[in-house]
Amino acid sequence: MKVTIKDIAREAGVSVAAVSLVLNHKDCRIAEDTKKRIIEVAQRYNYTVNQQARSLVTKKSNVIGLIIPDIENIFFSSLSKKIEEYCRKKGYAIMIVNTDENPATDIELLHLLVSRGVDGILYTPSIGTEEDYQKIKPYLETISVPYVMVDRYLDDIECNKVYIDNINGSMQAISMLVKSGHTKIGCIGYAVSKSTTNSRVTGYIEAMKQFDLPVDEKYIYDGQYKVIGGYNAGKEIVKTDLTAVYSCNDMMTLGFLRYLNECGKKVPEDYSIISYDNTLHNFVVKPKITTIDQDLGKLARNSCRLLFKNINDEKSEPEVICLYPQLLIKESVKKLNN
Amino acid sequence: MKVTIKDIAREAGVSVAAVSLVLNHKDCRIAEDTKKRIIEVAQRYNYTVNQQARSLVTKKSNVIGLIIPDIENIFFSSLSKKIEEYCRKKGYAIMIVNTDENPATDIELLHLLVSRGVDGILYTPSIGTEEDYQKIKPYLETISVPYVMVDRYLDDIECNKVYIDNINGSMQAISMLVKSGHTKIGCIGYAVSKSTTNSRVTGYIEAMKQFDLPVDEKYIYDGQYKVIGGYNAGKEIVKTDLTAVYSCNDMMTLGFLRYLNECGKKVPEDYSIISYDNTLHNFVVKPKITTIDQDLGKLARNSCRLLFKNINDEKSEPEVICLYPQLLIKESVKKLNN
Repeated sequence: MKVTIKDIAREAGVSVAAVSLVLNHKDCRIAEDTKKRIIEVAQRYNYTVNQQARSLVTKKSNVIGLIIPDIENIFFSSLSKKIEEYCRKKGYAIMIVNTDENPATDIELLHLLVSRGVDGILYTPSIGTEEDYQKIKPYLETISVPYVMVDRYLDDIECNKVYIDNINGSMQAISMLVKSGHTKIGCIGYAVSKSTTNSRVTGYIEAMKQFDLPVDEKYIYDGQYKVIGGYNAGKEIVKTDLTAVYSCNDMMTLGFLRYLNECGKKVPEDYSIISYDNTLHNFVVKPKITTIDQDLGKLARNSCRLLFKNINDEKSEPEVICLYPQLLIKESVKKLNN
Repeated sequence: MKVTIKDIAREAGVSVAAVSLVLNHKDCRIAEDTKKRIIEVAQRYNYTVNQQARSLVTKKSNVIGLIIPDIENIFFSSLSKKIEEYCRKKGYAIMIVNTDENPATDIELLHLLVSRGVDGILYTPSIGTEEDYQKIKPYLETISVPYVMVDRYLDDIECNKVYIDNINGSMQAISMLVKSGHTKIGCIGYAVSKSTTNSRVTGYIEAMKQFDLPVDEKYIYDGQYKVIGGYNAGKEIVKTDLTAVYSCNDMMTLGFLRYLNECGKKVPEDYSIISYDNTLHNFVVKPKITTIDQDLGKLARNSCRLLFKNINDEKSEPEVICLYPQLLIKESVKKLNN
């Protein structure tokens, strides 16, 4: 049985207008007793105010859209959870949608969230080519709700951005490998040929140059941020004389480790590894992997803060916040020098 | 610049009514050429039909709500992805929300999704007590949209349910351990004191009885489906003379393995383990863990199918679909007999 506002009014012995005022939290001169009675009746019948109809009037939905590229990647499922916790505290619900790292889907889901009347969007773009981004940009330039680019961003577009400095993270990783005596260092990255300013692969290349080490494209493997990509990179790496590998995310590291394991290679005896994300601590990975840690809580908090600010003040200037990652030294790097 | 329907009409040289008819996919006598022009102009300006306003008229939002208890649990993030893929193919978007295994949040999020105008809800209830469920039931009995209980269900409520038989899964696990000569078998489960008909712990107890093995409550550990819970159970288990452990999900198995690893215990030499979910194949867990596998694709497909059926025909009778899990034999069970 669907209960209507009329039923609530009849049961509480008040007018429909009174029920509407009270349940929509409007200022009104209704006695506290009556208010309580209305709320009590509404709760008893599990009556839910039609937020959708209401949001056409108030223009607020209290729903935030969250676009992530891969819900199965632990980094993004953990980030989603942190964002949701933070949003819920502030009275916002979040609607999570997943692009599967397909830039064409980015546009589709941006459209979808706007059409569903969200108040704002937290958006991690899929990794794409310059051509892909040229298609997304015109849409973002005319989008009718505030948005924040989270963790990744498109280059020449002025908007709220919160990200963690991947160049810095790569620098810390390569620096540690070099200090441990490694010079033959490969890299498992993502979308190697695609140009992204803040990419970890770009950071690897810059760091290698800074240490006067040769950069050879054949030692940069495209692992697509997936377990299978790291596994396939492993097949190539064991044919080389590399002594160390910088693996740009934990999913690929898992695949690489699995391949090494299958062919009896040991870490760090045969290969030193530095990974990225620090999401593996829950998993029994032996040895423990030296990794670049990113503060997910900080990323979530800052992204939400900028979005809320923009929702409440349309004219607020876009901000760019760059956070810094941290090297966590565990057991996966062998010292070649002494 | 926000583009309105009037701008589109002016640019295309047609009436506002014509634009509305075409973009809302209504049957109308507008020439194909004109239709094409309207769509082309709308696309050029990234014009999105106000779905929210429209859905008040058509009463359809093409959005499905998905309530999951823990987005960080790989089982649920993988299930979400499969559900999303299936829904998208059928023209539905999904809105994922997360209850964090808190039954009070279940009610809040059911309310929220209904108030956001979803067409239907896929709902995995949080694990709770009988008292918790008594609070959720009245809401479900009056809910105004179709819903399907996915993977878990509340007992005495008539509705669409798609689940995998946990009793059967437990029976397969215990049966294999018994066949391998184990009689001292512990269980790491969830919410041990809470009564759920289809729970894996209930299955463990029934299976032990069936094999005439004593059931001792002190060997049933509450691991709360979390890594830390499995880790803490490990601390207790190493003090006992158990030879085998049935761990009711992979997250707890990870924690248990970590504890065993820390105190130098080996699997299967010191403890045989059977886990549940088969989500660990991507992770380098040595030895490979014998596990109960659940077909996520089938679970997702059947759940969506029932929901779509109910959305399209309000009067369709509720269906209950029970799927069966499968034992995958790997390397974590030691044969005590020969």
